[in-house]
Amino acid sequence: MTKPLIRNCLTAIKPYVPGKPVEEVERELGLRDVIKLASNENPLGPSPLAVETLKKQLACLHYYPDGNCYYLKQELAERLKVGPENLIFGNGSDELLSLITLAYLNPGEEALAVQPTFSEYEFAVRLMEGTMRYVPLSGRDFDFDLEGLVGEVNEKTRLLFICSPNNPTGSIMRRRQLEALLDRLPPGVLVVLDQAYYEYVTDPDYPSGLEYVQEGRPVILLRTFSKIYGLAGLRIGYGIASREIVQDLNRVREPFNVNSVAQVAARAALGDQGHLERSRALVEKGRKQLQEGLARIGLRPVPSQANFYFIDVGIDSRAVFQAMLRRGVIIRTGDIFGYPTYIRVNFGTEEQNRRFLAALEEVLKELKGN
Amino acid sequence: MTKPLIRNCLTAIKPYVPGKPVEEVERELGLRDVIKLASNENPLGPSPLAVETLKKQLACLHYYPDGNCYYLKQELAERLKVGPENLIFGNGSDELLSLITLAYLNPGEEALAVQPTFSEYEFAVRLMEGTMRYVPLSGRDFDFDLEGLVGEVNEKTRLLFICSPNNPTGSIMRRRQLEALLDRLPPGVLVVLDQAYYEYVTDPDYPSGLEYVQEGRPVILLRTFSKIYGLAGLRIGYGIASREIVQDLNRVREPFNVNSVAQVAARAALGDQGHLERSRALVEKGRKQLQEGLARIGLRPVPSQANFYFIDVGIDSRAVFQAMLRRGVIIRTGDIFGYPTYIRVNFGTEEQNRRFLAALEEVLKELKGN
Repeated sequence: MTKPLIRNCLTAIKPYVPGKPVEEVERELGLRDVIKLASNENPLGPSPLAVETLKKQLACLHYYPDGNCYYLKQELAERLKVGPENLIFGNGSDELLSLITLAYLNPGEEALAVQPTFSEYEFAVRLMEGTMRYVPLSGRDFDFDLEGLVGEVNEKTRLLFICSPNNPTGSIMRRRQLEALLDRLPPGVLVVLDQAYYEYVTDPDYPSGLEYVQEGRPVILLRTFSKIYGLAGLRIGYGIASREIVQDLNRVREPFNVNSVAQVAARAALGDQGHLERSRALVEKGRKQLQEGLARIGLRPVPSQANFYFIDVGIDSRAVFQAMLRRGVIIRTGDIFGYPTYIRVNFGTEEQNRRFLAALEEVLKELKGN
Repeated sequence: MTKPLIRNCLTAIKPYVPGKPVEEVERELGLRDVIKLASNENPLGPSPLAVETLKKQLACLHYYPDGNCYYLKQELAERLKVGPENLIFGNGSDELLSLITLAYLNPGEEALAVQPTFSEYEFAVRLMEGTMRYVPLSGRDFDFDLEGLVGEVNEKTRLLFICSPNNPTGSIMRRRQLEALLDRLPPGVLVVLDQAYYEYVTDPDYPSGLEYVQEGRPVILLRTFSKIYGLAGLRIGYGIASREIVQDLNRVREPFNVNSVAQVAARAALGDQGHLERSRALVEKGRKQLQEGLARIGLRPVPSQANFYFIDVGIDSRAVFQAMLRRGVIIRTGDIFGYPTYIRVNFGTEEQNRRFLAALEEVLKELKGN
């Protein structure tokens, strides 16, 4: 085989470990009625309004999508009170991460993130032969460490990834911290504020981030239709930034990166306030239900502003994962985030949460040999 | 504004010029009943079987897609008689082009393509700071020039993009030429054989390309569900290559690059033989209808094995484009391919073809002042 050699910098990329799909578990274990609480999806499903609207769209699938997402962009700009030139859409926010490193990262330059956090920042950085540096979150609540972050910035730093609420911990960077960070960054560093879970936040100290874009700060906000809007399957996320940054990213964007079904569904979902409120209410209930249930079995989750908990179960979480799987409950192990005794579980419906709690109690008894 | 500087190599990227969407033309010109023959789409629309199947899928949009495209891959592998490990899916073949340069092209390395051809090869090459070299197609039938291609390969060449049938000319690289090319390439050069239009080919001298993959030649075939399958809006294309090449590309692929609706639709479309045959028959009729109609107004299209014609109209095609637009017919100008007096038009339904021919006759009379 005489294929070209793969680029040197790529050999260190670790493949992403996705949440196990329900159908895969059912196929492999011969189970039925499996529930998945592993990918922070919305248990209420997609907006019914979006589904209805889509049915009418299916006859037009043979047309290429609108590469500019014209209608969606207009509608979202109006809602956010930004200009259409401040918005860019991606094939999920995942793609936006790659567009950011493609636009801004030269070989040997650096990016900074907290640890633990979403693994795709490092993927995007390595793709461009960049170096990822990490600053640990601090304490048992996994708080952001402002001084630690500022101290790690050097003349090679180009990007700073702040996931807030952070995946997998659910902790947030508070307004005062974030503003101090922005004030202290040297010029030429872009803050990527990943707000995939921002619709779930209740803490008044959480900044929307829009004010930073409006003030012309070097910030791009990343949001998504995959979480509260229940459209993960369609792949659509968006970035909010200055016109200049959006122009740079458009330069490296493929012309038809967002499919037409996603555009139509996202637009309809934006108009479905009822679904948004039901989804938010369910997460608030789930947060409380799980916290109380976990307390009953002696566990304390990291305080979370998102739709999931990061929980130290005190034993190898891969064993817990397997035992939960056999009971038809898919969760996420912490080892992929560097925390082998933690699990991450997203809030489901009340009934799913009950099943999770019951299964976890059984599994921990079994594995800890009580 | 203190954003990072955009990477130097990106400033030379020319933005892609998409075919004008119908709704954009209707919006801008206040027209109705506009037809689009500018993006080589299938005028029959998507497979009705795919549309029916999708309706059942819409309730599951809140789940992340299967990152491995398990079921679709199994089904397609069986049909093609290759292994699932020989297949990779992309967010359209566009994305596969970027994955190829991301995997294999180091800064300063080179790629080769014919001219004129699809513009996205150069985009993907420039993204990775590579250099694109071109070898002109030859003669008025725009034939592939084997000696010209082989002569341009040097020690920096890593990729050779062969679009066959070629966009925008419709000409193909014949079996004997392609095999001679493969025989004469030095080791470490990958041939990207873009077969977006291969289902429309009737010439028996056209190789399926699968034999080269099976023989272990350094080839990746790119095919798509955007053309004959009528699913351009959903964004799904695929590559067929050795296990090693597929592994390399999977390393740079985002985990959820292909949306779930596209996966389900593609699988259903594969099973809709009737739609495939109707679409193929319509293209054969359109090819003949347009050739005869063009001859009547004194025009000769480049002989085409695809679902479009490249036609020298003898005057500035941008003026022709505008005048056609006012008559509600969207076509493509040749200037973006370096041929300012050519237009590209895809075959529509019989009625659409008639409208195109009538409009073109009028427009040329008007513009040539006869």
